Amino acid sequence: MITDALIERIVGMKNPTCVGLDTSFDYLPDEMRAGVKDFAGAAERIFDFNKTLIDRLYDVVPSVKVQIAYYEMYGVPGLKAFEETLRYAAEKGLIVIADAKRNDIGSTAACYSSAFLGETKVEGNASRAFPADFLTVNAYLGTDGIAPFVDDCKKRDRGIFVLVKTSNPSSGELQNKLLADGTLVYEYMGALVEKWGEGTEGKYGYSAVGAVVGATHPEEAARLRKLLPHTFFLIPGYGAQGGNAQMLKCCFGADGLGGVVNNSRGILCAYRKRGGTYYDAARAAALDMQRDLASVLGL
Amino acid sequence: MITDALIERIVGMKNPTCVGLDTSFDYLPDEMRAGVKDFAGAAERIFDFNKTLIDRLYDVVPSVKVQIAYYEMYGVPGLKAFEETLRYAAEKGLIVIADAKRNDIGSTAACYSSAFLGETKVEGNASRAFPADFLTVNAYLGTDGIAPFVDDCKKRDRGIFVLVKTSNPSSGELQNKLLADGTLVYEYMGALVEKWGEGTEGKYGYSAVGAVVGATHPEEAARLRKLLPHTFFLIPGYGAQGGNAQMLKCCFGADGLGGVVNNSRGILCAYRKRGGTYYDAARAAALDMQRDLASVLGL
Repeated sequence: MITDALIERIVGMKNPTCVGLDTSFDYLPDEMRAGVKDFAGAAERIFDFNKTLIDRLYDVVPSVKVQIAYYEMYGVPGLKAFEETLRYAAEKGLIVIADAKRNDIGSTAACYSSAFLGETKVEGNASRAFPADFLTVNAYLGTDGIAPFVDDCKKRDRGIFVLVKTSNPSSGELQNKLLADGTLVYEYMGALVEKWGEGTEGKYGYSAVGAVVGATHPEEAARLRKLLPHTFFLIPGYGAQGGNAQMLKCCFGADGLGGVVNNSRGILCAYRKRGGTYYDAARAAALDMQRDLASVLGL
Repeated sequence: MITDALIERIVGMKNPTCVGLDTSFDYLPDEMRAGVKDFAGAAERIFDFNKTLIDRLYDVVPSVKVQIAYYEMYGVPGLKAFEETLRYAAEKGLIVIADAKRNDIGSTAACYSSAFLGETKVEGNASRAFPADFLTVNAYLGTDGIAPFVDDCKKRDRGIFVLVKTSNPSSGELQNKLLADGTLVYEYMGALVEKWGEGTEGKYGYSAVGAVVGATHPEEAARLRKLLPHTFFLIPGYGAQGGNAQMLKCCFGADGLGGVVNNSRGILCAYRKRGGTYYDAARAAALDMQRDLASVLGL
């Protein structure tokens, strides 16, 4: 069961994190950008950068989150680099989270789910387009837009993370609105997530339907941790966005489990602050983050 | 101004519609599917199908909506067909709506906006990845996740359609929840959309920030039409999803303007009901839809 597999890697490495491969071409060191003039060249270098990073991180980091927007902006070649990154990370044993925040009506959501979690048949031949273990999704459309993803979670042992309380400053505009029944929108969304996950719980009690809960909103995170006992959290906002380990503690249970914390720019661009090669700096930053979180969570 | 341009094509053709190129490989006639076994082959045929359809429709239909999920499920080759479809439709003068429902925190939303509405620079060389006139977006994250798109709308004369009241059966789960202040979630979202569009209104009074409002919920659509005088509607749900012209009337103003109605499967798969070639059947179905809407709206 995929959430169990993620938890076991986290416990084995004492490291509840994922590295966010939000690899903008601009993040690459000067020498890797040299001579590149188009999307094809940029995409090739981005994949080289990711591959080397993965090689230096896979033994100390349990998972990667690959944000598709950073690839899509380099067009079709960028999406080839996205696909190659997903496949290479899986090859090295990492749990792979595709961060694409997909959402649509049921029939269209089924296409998205085929692309990331399932497979697509062409005249009986099935292939995987962008293979991931987990996919982030947005549930503004309600249950029938989420059902195709949940079906693939059950049928193929995958997982999703539904946006509940996001890390950005204006997330409260809708998510913290008070409903007439006395709950807040993010609490209501959290309750839907808990319901969608019913029956998919693994041996640690967490379901295949997780929630995105930002590290930058500790009060809301603490509330959600209590309300959603079977929901595993994907926690963005550590590092560049301002979240720290103390703020994150409330996203986890007493056992130190219950979530995975993402850091993107803090790892990818660590070489700019620390000096040295990007891959050694990234490994050092990832290990610092591991120590920071493990000490606070008692792992 | 892009919303003006769309309105002028609509008025010129007396046809407030877009054709949804949600081209699943399975929708192609048997002879076009023959011999294809992989994503590359499927994607090539999908583009051929779209190209022929566009050739038969561009003089009677003002716009196309291209749903990226149907291309993403065929992997990188599928997304190449998506890009080619966008470019070919624009070449034939169609207003191009990329239906991707993108959403994320500000920095990531800026990447998405570059991909669809703006351009991406590689060492000073700017290119467009997936060029569209309009993009659909999801605003669960609030203003700072929408701002990068609105910036590109202003800077580059593009438009967006924000999900407000979607056409699917479970859209009410969140969208029709009553807030403590007495408004419904979709009304609140609509008010945000109206605000985001401020200052971008064109000569017909409609802004560059439109709303997705499903034809399947006429009561909500009528309410939104009154509440959002400057918001142009993208209206899915006609045809296969159950919406008809009478239900749609409430999405439009007294002048017959204010929205564009999408039909996907009803056009793409018209040949299965009508017989004949897929392109002649599609043209006939598009013209039937045009007459249906024009008579009800008095165009």
